[in-house]
Amino acid sequence: MDHQQPLRKISEVGEFSLIEELTRPFQSKHSELVVGIGDDAAGICLDDELVQVISTDFLVEGVHFDPMYMPLKHLGYKAVSVNVSDICAMNATANFITVSIAVSSKYSVEALEELYAGIHAACEKFSISLVGGDTTAAPFGLTISITILGKVEKTKITKRSGAKNFDLLVVSGDLGGAYMGLQVLEREKEVFKANPKIQPELEGFDYIIQRQLKPEARKDIITILNQLGVVPTSMIDVSDGLASEILHLCKASQVGCHLYGEKIPMDTQTIQTALDFDLDPATVSLNGGEDYELLFTIDQKDVGNIQSNPHFAIIGHITDANDGIYHIDKQGTAVALKAQGWKHFN
Amino acid sequence: MDHQQPLRKISEVGEFSLIEELTRPFQSKHSELVVGIGDDAAGICLDDELVQVISTDFLVEGVHFDPMYMPLKHLGYKAVSVNVSDICAMNATANFITVSIAVSSKYSVEALEELYAGIHAACEKFSISLVGGDTTAAPFGLTISITILGKVEKTKITKRSGAKNFDLLVVSGDLGGAYMGLQVLEREKEVFKANPKIQPELEGFDYIIQRQLKPEARKDIITILNQLGVVPTSMIDVSDGLASEILHLCKASQVGCHLYGEKIPMDTQTIQTALDFDLDPATVSLNGGEDYELLFTIDQKDVGNIQSNPHFAIIGHITDANDGIYHIDKQGTAVALKAQGWKHFN
Repeated sequence: MDHQQPLRKISEVGEFSLIEELTRPFQSKHSELVVGIGDDAAGICLDDELVQVISTDFLVEGVHFDPMYMPLKHLGYKAVSVNVSDICAMNATANFITVSIAVSSKYSVEALEELYAGIHAACEKFSISLVGGDTTAAPFGLTISITILGKVEKTKITKRSGAKNFDLLVVSGDLGGAYMGLQVLEREKEVFKANPKIQPELEGFDYIIQRQLKPEARKDIITILNQLGVVPTSMIDVSDGLASEILHLCKASQVGCHLYGEKIPMDTQTIQTALDFDLDPATVSLNGGEDYELLFTIDQKDVGNIQSNPHFAIIGHITDANDGIYHIDKQGTAVALKAQGWKHFN
Repeated sequence: MDHQQPLRKISEVGEFSLIEELTRPFQSKHSELVVGIGDDAAGICLDDELVQVISTDFLVEGVHFDPMYMPLKHLGYKAVSVNVSDICAMNATANFITVSIAVSSKYSVEALEELYAGIHAACEKFSISLVGGDTTAAPFGLTISITILGKVEKTKITKRSGAKNFDLLVVSGDLGGAYMGLQVLEREKEVFKANPKIQPELEGFDYIIQRQLKPEARKDIITILNQLGVVPTSMIDVSDGLASEILHLCKASQVGCHLYGEKIPMDTQTIQTALDFDLDPATVSLNGGEDYELLFTIDQKDVGNIQSNPHFAIIGHITDANDGIYHIDKQGTAVALKAQGWKHFN
C-alpha cells in the first residue's frame, strides 16, 4: 500500500471493476479449468465429455432483501432459485448445493426453520441435493451464502463470450415483472409504516409479486433448448436488468448489438402497473432486474426452432463490435444502450 | 410455526444441533453423493476411481476475527488455509476455491487488495485456482465466504465415521499454540486500548502468534501419509479444540476412546506462555482451538509407520462405545472428556 495516495472508496470503483481488480493477479493452476472468473459460473472438465460448473452468491439483509416484506420461506426459495439460474445460464443442470448462514441472535430457531423450508422446497423443485454448509453467529442481520454445482456436456456448455456477428438475440419469458412487484411491495411497506392497521393492497398484483418474491429459475428452458437441438452461442441470466446483461454479453463476446425495444416481451400486469406508477414500461423492461429469465444468442440456422416457440422472443441481433450497442425504439430511433442496473434505477 | 409455543433462541440450541435440525428434512437426490452433511466435507463420486470433496466456511468480523489485531493479508491467508484444512481432513487434495465477500463501505479498495494478497499467497502455497466468487455491499463489517473443492481416490477418502475398536488415535504437529497466541494478542490489544502509544510486546511469542494469525493447513501430512502407505480409518481437523474433535469423531464412528493427556504434543513456547498466563497447559492443549492439525485414527497394523515419524504423536486408542470417552491424566485418573470448545473457553 502506498500511504501517500488517498485510499479509494469501494463505491468509486464499482462492483464489477472491483472483482476484476481484486482477482487479476490470480492465475489458473489447473488445465481442467475451462471457464474461469467472469462468467455466470466457472467450468471444470470432469472428463472428456462432462464439465462441472460452479457458481456462488451472497444474499445480505438490507442489501438484497428486506425481511419486512420478504417472508423467510420465500427468501430461502429465492436464494436457491437465483443460484440455479446461474447454472442454467451455462446451459447446465444444477445438482448439488451448499448453504451457509451467518445470523444474529434476533432470529429465532423457528425463523431459520422457515428459511430452510423454502430452501428445501426449491431443492425439491429443482432436484438438487444439499451437501453442506456452515452456520455461524453474526453481529448483524442475516447473510446467506450459497454455492451451487452443476454439469453439462462439454459440447453444450454456453459461455457469455460466444456471440458472433449476425447471431440473433433471444430472451425467455417476459421482463420487468419482478421490478414492478418490488415497487408494489415498497409502496405497501410505506403505507404499513404510516399506519400498521391498514392491510396491504396486493390484489391484482399476484403475478408481479410472485415474480419478485418467488422467482423461478428457467431450468425448463434448458430442457426445451436441448429438445429443440439448439445450443446457444452465448448466454447469461437476467438478474441485473436486460440492458446491463446485453452489455455484459457483448463485452465478453466482443461484439455489437441492435436491440429492438418493441420486441421485448412484457406481461400486461407489468405494463399496467408501470403506467399506474407513472413509469415508462419500456424503461422498466430494459432496466428492471431480478426476472431471472435467460438471455442468449443463437446462430441464424436455429431461427426456425426458436421463432415459433411461445417461450422465446427474438429481440435483436448481434453486429460487429465497431457498430456499437444500440437500443432501437418504435420510431426507429437508435440510442446507445446504457445500463442503469436495477439498484440505481430504484 | 406453532405460535402457541415460545420461540426458541439460537443460543439455546447450539451450532451443531442447529445444523442437524435445519438440514434433517433434506434427502440426497443423487446416488453419486457418498459423503453428505456432517463431515469436514461432502463427497461426490466423479467416476469409479475419484471422489470430489467440497466444503464451505464463513468468517465473520467480530465473531471469527478482530481486524484490530488481525492484518487483512493474514486474514485472507487464514481464510484459505482453514478451508484447505477441511479438505485435508478428508485425506484429499484441494484444487479449486471460490471466495465471496460482503463488505461495508468503511473498507477501502486498498484494504480489500491486502485481503486478496493474502488469499493469493495461500492459493500459491497450496496450489489452488480461484474460480469465482461474489462481491457485495454489506451494512456492517466484513464477511468472507469460501467454498473449496478437492479430490481424492475413492479407496483413500477418510471420513469421521470409520474409527473402530482398538484403532490408535494420532495427532499431527502440536496443540494449544494458536489459543495462547490469541491470549497474547488480546492482552496487547487491551494495553493498546489503554495507551495507544505503547508498542505491543510480541517478542518471544513469534511461534504462537504465527499459529494464530497464519495457520498452515497440513497438506504435507496428507502427502506423508500417502508416502507411508497409511490410510487413516477416520480423520477430522482440529479447529474447535482437541476434546471437541475427539467427541465428534467418536460420535460419528460410534466408538469410545481413551485419551492420554500427557501424550498430547505441545511446543515449549505454548507451555511457558500458558504458565505465564496462569493457565493449565493440559487444559489449553485439550480445549484451545484453531491449531488446524489433523486428528486421525489408524489400524494397529500401521503403528510401525506412524510411531517413528516425528510429525505424529499417538495420544490414545479407540474403545467400544459402551466404554465411554475418557481423558486419562498423568496420575492415571480417568475423567469423562468434555468439550468446552475454544469460544466458550475464551
